[in-house]
Amino acid sequence: MKFEVTILGCSSATPVFNRNPSAQLLNCNEKYYLIDCGEGTQQQLTKYNLKAARIDYIFISHLHGDHYFGLIGLLSSLHLNGRTKPMQIFGPTPLLEILEIQFKYSDTVLRYPIEFFPIEANESQQIFENSDLIIKTIVLNHRIPTTGFIFQQKQRQRKLIKDKTEEIPMAYYSALKKGIDVELPNGDILRSEEYTTPADPPRCYAYCSDTLYDESYFPVIKGCDTLYHEATFMHDLLDRAIETHHTTALQAGEVAKINGVKKLLIGHFSSRYKTLQMLLEETQSVFENTELAVEGRTFHL
Amino acid sequence: MKFEVTILGCSSATPVFNRNPSAQLLNCNEKYYLIDCGEGTQQQLTKYNLKAARIDYIFISHLHGDHYFGLIGLLSSLHLNGRTKPMQIFGPTPLLEILEIQFKYSDTVLRYPIEFFPIEANESQQIFENSDLIIKTIVLNHRIPTTGFIFQQKQRQRKLIKDKTEEIPMAYYSALKKGIDVELPNGDILRSEEYTTPADPPRCYAYCSDTLYDESYFPVIKGCDTLYHEATFMHDLLDRAIETHHTTALQAGEVAKINGVKKLLIGHFSSRYKTLQMLLEETQSVFENTELAVEGRTFHL
Repeated sequence: MKFEVTILGCSSATPVFNRNPSAQLLNCNEKYYLIDCGEGTQQQLTKYNLKAARIDYIFISHLHGDHYFGLIGLLSSLHLNGRTKPMQIFGPTPLLEILEIQFKYSDTVLRYPIEFFPIEANESQQIFENSDLIIKTIVLNHRIPTTGFIFQQKQRQRKLIKDKTEEIPMAYYSALKKGIDVELPNGDILRSEEYTTPADPPRCYAYCSDTLYDESYFPVIKGCDTLYHEATFMHDLLDRAIETHHTTALQAGEVAKINGVKKLLIGHFSSRYKTLQMLLEETQSVFENTELAVEGRTFHL
Repeated sequence: MKFEVTILGCSSATPVFNRNPSAQLLNCNEKYYLIDCGEGTQQQLTKYNLKAARIDYIFISHLHGDHYFGLIGLLSSLHLNGRTKPMQIFGPTPLLEILEIQFKYSDTVLRYPIEFFPIEANESQQIFENSDLIIKTIVLNHRIPTTGFIFQQKQRQRKLIKDKTEEIPMAYYSALKKGIDVELPNGDILRSEEYTTPADPPRCYAYCSDTLYDESYFPVIKGCDTLYHEATFMHDLLDRAIETHHTTALQAGEVAKINGVKKLLIGHFSSRYKTLQMLLEETQSVFENTELAVEGRTFHL
């Protein structure tokens, strides 16, 4: 099952050096989940050949503009392009007011319904579930209410071994995939273990932006396969990071290491850094399996 | 005196084919005036090496998103980049409410003052004057209250002829430039016409987007040097243009011809047109001196 994320923006605060503000597109089993939506996200989707029309779920971490100023434009374009299916949006309560006031004054009545789910940033909670995923919030520590998101795949069924099962009636597949042995009318037993292989272990992606380094959210992300974590500054600017409630590249590595994740992606880079290699190296000095979450890169999770 | 406009966006409604929503930067005597501000305008300014920090005046024609969704991001970036000088914004009354609600929920207190001038779209009025320009609104006919803008240079003073005036005391320059003859202490007369040449005639730029073809705004733009006019559709889609309160390429040419402008720029092209040559040709069939107002082009006005 496909489970990958494409980076649409990795800049903090302002777009600069061809880096756009925060946005990521998660593809889970060919369903599109948009995570944050900085200005220009719809242009970025076009640039990377990702169809905005396929997005059905949008998650906004907080109401600093670099994380949501592109949302109203994206929603408007979908309307103008004839969308009729609902859009589910998860974000801070005032986000709906911000959207509605702009639709009101442009005299826009959307052709599709927005289903808005307000997020409270006081405790981690499950906000979404479908056949593929459970999504929970991560309560972060920023200047305004902010949550990250954790995308947890569900346990999949065992996989049929094609060569062995092609002569078995399809009616038995479901039980075998669930790990149940089947007794045939003639008394023979089909053992699930013999006709199936174990399912891929369910994977997990955690998105943490923006936040002060703060152990309070560690329990929620512990053991996750891939962690995206903001790394706005180099560690020599720790004071500035603390003042603005952000994390340093070194600290991002520590978060990954302490919480035993397998892979770390860093992003949300300050406009003071024209190139990013030194941020990467600083993080890798603590946690080696780190990559830069820069525009256009797709990571298999 | 420099008087030129750089096109930052020429797309209607949605960004597509690398065309961005409406925005133009007017440079008059090295002062920057931004006209409309679709999503991604700040990125476009960067792309064309135009310093956003130099913009002191912003004019928003109406509250359809393709004309203003980039404003909140631009203003936020200026704040984050340390701006302290005021920004004057001219636009529909609710625009201020839309901006303020977003600053409120992001807990942003701008480091610079916004001086907001609400525009009423019921009659043409002067909204701005400085030593270079007078700016008036053009009441357009769109689905929501909409005004264009007319940028009228002031009459400049006559120009000194360097070779002839270098031996004349500077104290007399001012009178000569104003066309006044000067009597010297010895009774000699310095004739302004002899020491100066006429000033360049003041020029005029009119910006009309979005609007139905409607003769009611013709008196305001009559005789203007350069007219920017929307040309959303080809004329075979006249019904669609009327329904959506837009103008066809043919009609844009007629507006230019009837009103005796010298040059026409067309823009605000529908996303149904992947290439624009046929729109240009349709307009030129009526008004030959027409150009496509596409991204990155600068027109001397």
